[in-house]
Amino acid sequence: MPDHQRAWLVLAHAFVRVSELRNLLEHFGTVGEVAAQSRSTLAATGLAGEKCDAIVSPDEKTIGRALAWLDQERHHLVAWGDDDYPEMLSQVPGPPLVLYVNGDVDAMHLPSLAIVGSRNPTQGGRRNAHDFAQHLAAGGLAITSGMAQGIDAAAHEGALDAGGKTIAFLGTGIDRVYPPVNRSLAHTIAERGALVSEYPLGSPPEKWHFPERNRLISGVSLGTLVVEAARRSGSLITARLAAEQGREVFALPGSIHNALARGCHELIRQGAKLVETADDILAELGQLAEHLRPTADDADYETLRDYLSHDPVGIDELGKQSGLTIDQLSSMLLILELHGEVESFPGGRYAKKEPLQA
Amino acid sequence: MPDHQRAWLVLAHAFVRVSELRNLLEHFGTVGEVAAQSRSTLAATGLAGEKCDAIVSPDEKTIGRALAWLDQERHHLVAWGDDDYPEMLSQVPGPPLVLYVNGDVDAMHLPSLAIVGSRNPTQGGRRNAHDFAQHLAAGGLAITSGMAQGIDAAAHEGALDAGGKTIAFLGTGIDRVYPPVNRSLAHTIAERGALVSEYPLGSPPEKWHFPERNRLISGVSLGTLVVEAARRSGSLITARLAAEQGREVFALPGSIHNALARGCHELIRQGAKLVETADDILAELGQLAEHLRPTADDADYETLRDYLSHDPVGIDELGKQSGLTIDQLSSMLLILELHGEVESFPGGRYAKKEPLQA
Repeated sequence: MPDHQRAWLVLAHAFVRVSELRNLLEHFGTVGEVAAQSRSTLAATGLAGEKCDAIVSPDEKTIGRALAWLDQERHHLVAWGDDDYPEMLSQVPGPPLVLYVNGDVDAMHLPSLAIVGSRNPTQGGRRNAHDFAQHLAAGGLAITSGMAQGIDAAAHEGALDAGGKTIAFLGTGIDRVYPPVNRSLAHTIAERGALVSEYPLGSPPEKWHFPERNRLISGVSLGTLVVEAARRSGSLITARLAAEQGREVFALPGSIHNALARGCHELIRQGAKLVETADDILAELGQLAEHLRPTADDADYETLRDYLSHDPVGIDELGKQSGLTIDQLSSMLLILELHGEVESFPGGRYAKKEPLQA
Repeated sequence: MPDHQRAWLVLAHAFVRVSELRNLLEHFGTVGEVAAQSRSTLAATGLAGEKCDAIVSPDEKTIGRALAWLDQERHHLVAWGDDDYPEMLSQVPGPPLVLYVNGDVDAMHLPSLAIVGSRNPTQGGRRNAHDFAQHLAAGGLAITSGMAQGIDAAAHEGALDAGGKTIAFLGTGIDRVYPPVNRSLAHTIAERGALVSEYPLGSPPEKWHFPERNRLISGVSLGTLVVEAARRSGSLITARLAAEQGREVFALPGSIHNALARGCHELIRQGAKLVETADDILAELGQLAEHLRPTADDADYETLRDYLSHDPVGIDELGKQSGLTIDQLSSMLLILELHGEVESFPGGRYAKKEPLQA
């Protein structure tokens, strides 16, 4: 419904907040109706003057450019309240009104872990970020991060190396790459995961976008892992937001002589979970798994359970037998693993686990 | 009073516990009287038969050997209830009946920190143990440990390199050195700190002595710092005892790829304080300082306060001016520092600190 999409773009370019939208919808019913109101009718709801102006007289060139962008393959506008809008993001304070997505919209619905850290990590830190992301993405978790240099990039790359899903939340418009050095990484993420931004097309990398964007990284994820971070760094903001959003915070400890372990140690002192292995994270997330809403039907889970046995079976074999796609299977198997029903083995093999006696 | 000493030795060689002694003293008033009772009178108090036998018919050769050992310079028997018996040890469950001390009895009354860890540490772990001990001993804390190879030895050496006090609690009789490779270290500790054992002279390094001895290391100390430790290691026993005794537990984090950081990480997960610098420890102990009983008179503290100013003054200068010894001063200054009255500066200089407004 292109008209509907146009209305969302008009409201988004007027920087209408979700809280304001709720009020407008109470008055006018639909976003289409909101966008069709006169200035005085809008102003009567209490909406700020400049927002009323921007709705009544939108910059048609800007809206047109966004519509043209959305016309391209794998480009999406996900609006608040849509089925495609991530449930996890709708729970956080100040959810974005719209998300511009370049890539796989479904990736945002996978259970995910944020991995963030320094832009100038040690070699060991970079390797840890990569290896944790690779292990967890292989297990079916999507890896979210901010596409910065250093830890962020290593986390995205680890997930991609596992053939897993990764999502980069941007501090610029979806059509820009920042930092430019990550151009090739951005293309790969768009092809095999998703780039996501809440900012209008063409938005430059404003300094204040990055802490704001961080709430999406932490908010969409079950937890945030900080790999290496200096004291007073952006990664600690993401971790603080994660805690405020009721998400898990994980931190990797390091040598007391490594200045980039300081931020992680500060988090641990404040209650973040100290993590030594990727399995430590899976164990903690297992306790959250009860709150995960399976994206597959119950019938699909029943089918999968029928094909699982106490001997490990490869995910490809399960796909052939069950008729479920590898994407469906890896998400479902992770959820079953987090529930303690399934155990994963090297080489992407899975087996039924004896249920614990209550 | 040699007779009294002999009576204590008789009871110690009968392995009488402090809880049993309390009962005996209620009946007979003094240890001299206890040692002079008949078997039936002792047995009537409920004391186990073999302990009654050992009191009534002590092995005179063994007692004689202990008395001969005690006759030598700097050799002491410190009995439960003596002024020399460390207050911190009298608070712990199962306090030793007697302590054999080779060295400086007063060292046991300094505020102290236990530093323990692996017998096979990494080079970095060894250096950390040494440097933390050196820094904290220079500040006036006695460093306690178990004289094992590795972290223990490095901690003792760090304290000695600072010209500070260190105390080794032994799992053998006081006249034996275990492990033999630490013979030279043992001699230096005896000369400049103290070797302490609760076991009869000649006792071999029984396996069960070491965990038992660990309760003294943790018990005499305000806190225990674990530097590097494998999971399921003796150092974790000391840390657990420290926690049970109401002492602080500190642990140094390390790389997730260092197997000897695992024990420390386990402790941190269980609530141990994550420590990056020696000053982190002083800051925590400051909160304990209110429970420290100054070993100097109030008058000595008043004298010291008179000579302190808001400009840093060297400890030597303070010694000359106040007439107090360097040993007295370093202990008093540490206590004032822990109380927040005094600030320390590089080069052993100290200045008055403005009191915080309540």
